[in-house]
Amino acid sequence: MSMTTMDCDPFREIRVPFKVIKGGVTAPRGFRAAAISCGIKNPEAARLDLALIVSDTPAVTDAVYTTNKVRAACVRVSQIHIRESDTRAIIANSGNANACTGPQGIQDAKAMCKAAAEALGLRMRQVQVCSTGIIGMNMPIQRVTPRVAELAAKLSPAGSDDAAAAIMTSDTRPKSYAIEVPCPGGGSFRIGGIAKGAGMICPDMATMLCFITTDAKISKDEIKRAIRCAVDQSFNCITIDGDTSTNDTVIVMSNGQASAPAMRKGSDEAKIFRCALHKVMLELAKMIVADGERVTKFVEIRVRNARTHADAKKVAEAVAKSMLVKCSFHGSDPNWGRIIHAVGYSGARIREEMVDIYFGGLLACKGGLTSGTPVAELEKVVKEPRFSVTIDLNLGSANHIVYTSDLSEAYVDFNSSEYSAAVHARRQKGLA
Amino acid sequence: MSMTTMDCDPFREIRVPFKVIKGGVTAPRGFRAAAISCGIKNPEAARLDLALIVSDTPAVTDAVYTTNKVRAACVRVSQIHIRESDTRAIIANSGNANACTGPQGIQDAKAMCKAAAEALGLRMRQVQVCSTGIIGMNMPIQRVTPRVAELAAKLSPAGSDDAAAAIMTSDTRPKSYAIEVPCPGGGSFRIGGIAKGAGMICPDMATMLCFITTDAKISKDEIKRAIRCAVDQSFNCITIDGDTSTNDTVIVMSNGQASAPAMRKGSDEAKIFRCALHKVMLELAKMIVADGERVTKFVEIRVRNARTHADAKKVAEAVAKSMLVKCSFHGSDPNWGRIIHAVGYSGARIREEMVDIYFGGLLACKGGLTSGTPVAELEKVVKEPRFSVTIDLNLGSANHIVYTSDLSEAYVDFNSSEYSAAVHARRQKGLA
Repeated sequence: MSMTTMDCDPFREIRVPFKVIKGGVTAPRGFRAAAISCGIKNPEAARLDLALIVSDTPAVTDAVYTTNKVRAACVRVSQIHIRESDTRAIIANSGNANACTGPQGIQDAKAMCKAAAEALGLRMRQVQVCSTGIIGMNMPIQRVTPRVAELAAKLSPAGSDDAAAAIMTSDTRPKSYAIEVPCPGGGSFRIGGIAKGAGMICPDMATMLCFITTDAKISKDEIKRAIRCAVDQSFNCITIDGDTSTNDTVIVMSNGQASAPAMRKGSDEAKIFRCALHKVMLELAKMIVADGERVTKFVEIRVRNARTHADAKKVAEAVAKSMLVKCSFHGSDPNWGRIIHAVGYSGARIREEMVDIYFGGLLACKGGLTSGTPVAELEKVVKEPRFSVTIDLNLGSANHIVYTSDLSEAYVDFNSSEYSAAVHARRQKGLA
Repeated sequence: MSMTTMDCDPFREIRVPFKVIKGGVTAPRGFRAAAISCGIKNPEAARLDLALIVSDTPAVTDAVYTTNKVRAACVRVSQIHIRESDTRAIIANSGNANACTGPQGIQDAKAMCKAAAEALGLRMRQVQVCSTGIIGMNMPIQRVTPRVAELAAKLSPAGSDDAAAAIMTSDTRPKSYAIEVPCPGGGSFRIGGIAKGAGMICPDMATMLCFITTDAKISKDEIKRAIRCAVDQSFNCITIDGDTSTNDTVIVMSNGQASAPAMRKGSDEAKIFRCALHKVMLELAKMIVADGERVTKFVEIRVRNARTHADAKKVAEAVAKSMLVKCSFHGSDPNWGRIIHAVGYSGARIREEMVDIYFGGLLACKGGLTSGTPVAELEKVVKEPRFSVTIDLNLGSANHIVYTSDLSEAYVDFNSSEYSAAVHARRQKGLA
């Protein structure tokens, strides 16, 4: 068992021992998962597209949903369910987003919850429903609900990988991560998660979904705070400028089956839990960026010494979302001119003559001017598939990191023709 | 002489007769221009890269400069000059932005003004200086200032086309437009302009420059108001989200040599002048979009019936700058799902069930749901090189238009390799 430490705050290291384990959402005790192929993605090909995740015992659950004002039917239904009841199960499909589908969409989302509840002996409101895929077409619900009993029968403590595969859309690989964390007073708890991403770092209509399970003993209030905090420092560092999709959802279910003591407010255990939840979300968030559509570079944009955290965030996001900066990453060009240009229009308080820019550890721009570091050395850094850009504003002490990627011709090609052609073909066939 | 009418407010037609004329910035009476090749872009190839525009008589001038907090040396110098003196001349170069160049950059910008002032018999502060090109390298000033006398000797009432060519960077064609407008009480005035753009619709470091001349008789106050208003409805409808470059500049010089009466505040002539200035800027702005790097589609995003103008603008800009929407334009995909997704995250007040989306005149999405218009018919619209997308929010009465383009693989290729390679080659040679 190799113990390692994690970097909870990107800049301020809190050292917490933990162990990476297998099993995703079924790594924590008392959770089972399963997936089947219903032909939502394509009735002719057997791709997993319907997943179920269940806690065998009562669970404390909270979730964060999209802030997009256009919300999918499944999000609307899930938001009501989580307010009105405890949650024991998540049913999720890929291939159709059930967004912009009107009253029929609401009916379909409810039908999925009802079918899951019946198969599991739960109340309908104990089920969360998530969808990801094409916008604006009704769910092929007649291919889904009759199969839910079969899906429930497959539930297994080894079902996480199938569930992770079933929520993929344009993802090239499933995303799964789990850790076990010992508590100082004895005992341990586990947190596991699966996720899907898409598009660039800004989620496509194909949505960012993340389902996390834990066997920690934790109150609803404490889990709520922990989720908000962890999402802010993970998924919100990859989704830029409020670009949440119509379906984005992060759900955390905890069932208290662990040997660790209860995570009381303000306790060391509660702090460790927050840190661990952040770690799991951050790893899944990074996997989403690295698996973005046709991405060839993974870049950390680190902003240091801004006046305020809001300023640090503005600068990091402006740089991370600049198409020109992303193009220069793709071309392995250490173009600090494009970066300082984005720093300048970010809206943050900056002083041009105070700005330092580094590629990796190498100074490219000192006080707003060229540093004199030979271009050939800077190029070595940006030729790597993973590197960091540090922007030191030298004005205050606030920091922020954003994880981003390059912009490739293949991304444009994929999103303008390949993907569109696939969608078009399905529309022509009348498929959802 | 074919008279036509112009569309001053995109949605509220004010009918003003006018005539399109040749001559760009030298179309109005009393202006001369010239350009030469100094080897700023490339010492080995004779490309025009230094321009001069002069009013033969005293002029009333105002300008709008970049809001980027990283400001080029030339912008800093010009901003001081315009506050302290009337302006009679503009000297502008391409190939080097004179940005992120520190005290040496300021000295170089002043040296350009001084050389122009000496050659023209003006005071240094009567000269505006503009640069566009690479960021972070000092101007090859020794190749510039000794040539300014020769440049001044070439000044001619037929020099506008040369000046327009000399300010180009990645532009594929010069941008020039001029009109003659008769006044209701007799007489007429002319307005002419040249411009350069670059990047997508968000200006690259290569900058958006626009120089406008007019022979109208107009006060400094009135010209100030007219510029702000015209820029807001033209260049600010193509520059998105505050993405102004380090060098963006719009300058308007008026010398009162026209036969039209003075444009007194609140008079019909003043209204006509505003409208005409807007028209010239709008035509130049549209040329910039249509000549964006590797652009294949020109798209008008028309937002209607928002609660407030701010909301209309948020929606139009969110849609226009969405990479996914741009990719679907490129692929001729009438993907209203990606559009409503951007509408939803724009931050504007919208109601999903009220949103209608049209491609050209065809309804694609009605009340947030598919309209049932056959996809094949919608595709006919988006296959055209120019089309409009109308988003009707059905909530209020505020409107806004943004002009945008598609995102092509060639854009990414150009900005990640072709362009970078060129810059790299010049850096290696130590050229500015």
